Amino acid sequence: MRNILVIGAGRSSSSLIKYLLDKSSEENLHVIVADVDKVTAEDKINQHSNATAISLNVFEKEDRQNAVKNADIVISMLPARFHLDVAKDCLEFGKNLITASYVSKEMQTLNTDVKAKGLTFMNEIGLDPGVDHMSAMQIIDRIKEKGAKMLLFESFTGGLVAPESDNNLWNYKFSWNPRNVVVAGQGSVSKFIQEGKYKYIPYQKLFRRTEFLHIDGYGRFEGYANRDSLKYRSVYGLDDIPTLYRGTIRKVGFSRAWNVFIQLGMTDDTYQIEDSENMTYRDFTNSFLAYHPTDSVELKLRHYLKIDQDDIIWDKLMELDIFSKTKKVELKNATPAQILQKILMDSWTLQEDDKDMIVMCHKFGYEFEGKKQQIESQMVVIGDDQTYTAMAKTVGLPVAIATLKILNGEITKTGVLIPIDKNVYEPILKELENYGVKFTEKSVPYLGYNPDKL
Amino acid sequence: MRNILVIGAGRSSSSLIKYLLDKSSEENLHVIVADVDKVTAEDKINQHSNATAISLNVFEKEDRQNAVKNADIVISMLPARFHLDVAKDCLEFGKNLITASYVSKEMQTLNTDVKAKGLTFMNEIGLDPGVDHMSAMQIIDRIKEKGAKMLLFESFTGGLVAPESDNNLWNYKFSWNPRNVVVAGQGSVSKFIQEGKYKYIPYQKLFRRTEFLHIDGYGRFEGYANRDSLKYRSVYGLDDIPTLYRGTIRKVGFSRAWNVFIQLGMTDDTYQIEDSENMTYRDFTNSFLAYHPTDSVELKLRHYLKIDQDDIIWDKLMELDIFSKTKKVELKNATPAQILQKILMDSWTLQEDDKDMIVMCHKFGYEFEGKKQQIESQMVVIGDDQTYTAMAKTVGLPVAIATLKILNGEITKTGVLIPIDKNVYEPILKELENYGVKFTEKSVPYLGYNPDKL
Repeated sequence: MRNILVIGAGRSSSSLIKYLLDKSSEENLHVIVADVDKVTAEDKINQHSNATAISLNVFEKEDRQNAVKNADIVISMLPARFHLDVAKDCLEFGKNLITASYVSKEMQTLNTDVKAKGLTFMNEIGLDPGVDHMSAMQIIDRIKEKGAKMLLFESFTGGLVAPESDNNLWNYKFSWNPRNVVVAGQGSVSKFIQEGKYKYIPYQKLFRRTEFLHIDGYGRFEGYANRDSLKYRSVYGLDDIPTLYRGTIRKVGFSRAWNVFIQLGMTDDTYQIEDSENMTYRDFTNSFLAYHPTDSVELKLRHYLKIDQDDIIWDKLMELDIFSKTKKVELKNATPAQILQKILMDSWTLQEDDKDMIVMCHKFGYEFEGKKQQIESQMVVIGDDQTYTAMAKTVGLPVAIATLKILNGEITKTGVLIPIDKNVYEPILKELENYGVKFTEKSVPYLGYNPDKL
Repeated sequence: MRNILVIGAGRSSSSLIKYLLDKSSEENLHVIVADVDKVTAEDKINQHSNATAISLNVFEKEDRQNAVKNADIVISMLPARFHLDVAKDCLEFGKNLITASYVSKEMQTLNTDVKAKGLTFMNEIGLDPGVDHMSAMQIIDRIKEKGAKMLLFESFTGGLVAPESDNNLWNYKFSWNPRNVVVAGQGSVSKFIQEGKYKYIPYQKLFRRTEFLHIDGYGRFEGYANRDSLKYRSVYGLDDIPTLYRGTIRKVGFSRAWNVFIQLGMTDDTYQIEDSENMTYRDFTNSFLAYHPTDSVELKLRHYLKIDQDDIIWDKLMELDIFSKTKKVELKNATPAQILQKILMDSWTLQEDDKDMIVMCHKFGYEFEGKKQQIESQMVVIGDDQTYTAMAKTVGLPVAIATLKILNGEITKTGVLIPIDKNVYEPILKELENYGVKFTEKSVPYLGYNPDKL
């Protein structure tokens, strides 16, 4: 039996563990699921005979090192900031490592030592980052191989609620860390390049500069720019590309309404609201509006942000109950973002029967033999239930597949890696299709940023 | 002769030095003006027989200490971050110190030692901070002394252009550090208290939440909230006051137009624009607008920010030439804020014959014998010319007057101080009147935040 150590048994580990257990007899695998909370780990293995659940606090060096030492390969599904100690142990004890997280600077510095020991540390092999890298590189490499020149690459990803569970006016529920949704776009300007021109969108306009996109069978969506559209420009070999844009997908109308929170200041995570604990939701909303002796909080907000009474934005705000006189914040020394998150979680938490949905869409513009062409590639994954969510599948399955391929010697490149090599992405994308993680590709007329041929 | 060392002979030292030199014979003063640039120091003393100009680099410890040692009292007009070494020298050699800057944490930690040595380190005794403290405390103390209860304190200050030199559409020119104007309001939320309710304005709404104020003889102005309205709440003894607001004064309409730069993202000082050096002003403006193959930069901006063609905002933007195809940025690796500053300095730099203007306005609401009342106190100072500017007078004269009073033993309190004590502010405010730095006070009906008695 070959021991696979999975550290972290949170929500995004379910499909990953299931994949490995389903293959465990055939592949001679023993899966050790380690979590600080042993019950969580036990839940995930469901008394499977080829699995063991253990309690592990990764800050206990001896316990952590013992677990790594006894494994043949290690998967870290911990929050990104906790990978490093595990990575150092893997280096010390000569174990391959797989994570779904961005390569941190500290992780990158291990590259030389990882190579020297002949090890593979495969990172960014979840959904985003992960499936986005692989599915984009597959088409970019193909376009380049035939001698065409890349003109445009746009890539959008969103974690949303499935149509059958989409029953609120925002067409949105939290399928991932709510905090990241509340503070999305903050901290630095959003920068990208369009037709050779660098463009910058400040936070206060980010959700008003969306792009529309059509997903076959699912209708129209919108995307707002990521802060880091240019991050993979060199890595993808697109240094000279005139248009490069990465965005996050929402249903149309989300961003326009979300902008209300930004304009009010409710997404700010940098200061604490006075006496937040004893506030009602209404008090919280009112703290961003000027004092008036008689005007209602509702009217003040409508007037301040010029929202007509029959604007759907208004219904969206009412649905969240942000004017409630009875609901209490009940959070001590909370930032506006923390309070807003609580208000949103009242409404946007996935219920037991709800399903989530992952949508990914790439656009590739290129010039070949003097002719401009465009490929669109789209993926939609719907969760099975609240355990095998679309998020868990799209994050966990690529991790699991990569792990087995590394363990079986099918992926042999060494170093601190991300999945942008053909011999990595081809077999993984192929196998993902068996699990419904599948891209549909079509050729469309080249649009670029001049669709009307002006 | 008593030696007064003035370190820093920049623009705000002119009135200060003139005051001391005018009194030098009568008061037996010798003024040593020290600057890193000796010519600047010489200019300021104009060959006066009771003065010496010296070259001093404050980072040369020995030179700095020699200068301090030979003085009877020291004035530091250096940028605030450079005071500390001078302050430590003053402590070591037993010299009193006067600055116009905010008391830094480091300066505050010297308090016990300063007291132990029987020294006076008087800070925040320029305009703002300085004249604002003194003029506010004079009326607050008076209101409290008669047994009334403070209900409201609002305080506004602005450095503007004098009406006779006000010849641009923004009614504004730089009379102080332009950089501070460009980044004003950034870095933290603006927080204040209105009728017992804490209120928070995010940066993206700061210039849309102005308050109007009327200055007798000068018409209507507007104020936008400072970030730190509550900073002096305890220091002023106003812990329980229901309304406390501090703001910065502009002519009406400035803020609404300034908001265009904020919405575009042009005031951001946190990242560098690609290839800024070779951009035209038009390129710079266009980098905040979406790409379009044919629409003009002008139309894109108007549409984006919904500016009608006959809106005065549009004329203000045109006046600054932000769409120029010929004017170059010519700044390497510049932030948006640095580029915007350059564009503004083309238009807003005070010309040789221009005069500046300082406006300060306080509102004090209180309840006395069951009746609510309000006092308004206003000050307008116009510069004489480009040397004895309103800014130089209002910053430098209180420093000079305080220096002489400390030297003459009329101000004796020890420690790291700010001018909030009656025996400090009374004589200084009285003497300032001789120089035209004078408040006009009137009683008005109490308005509070319910002027219509709703």
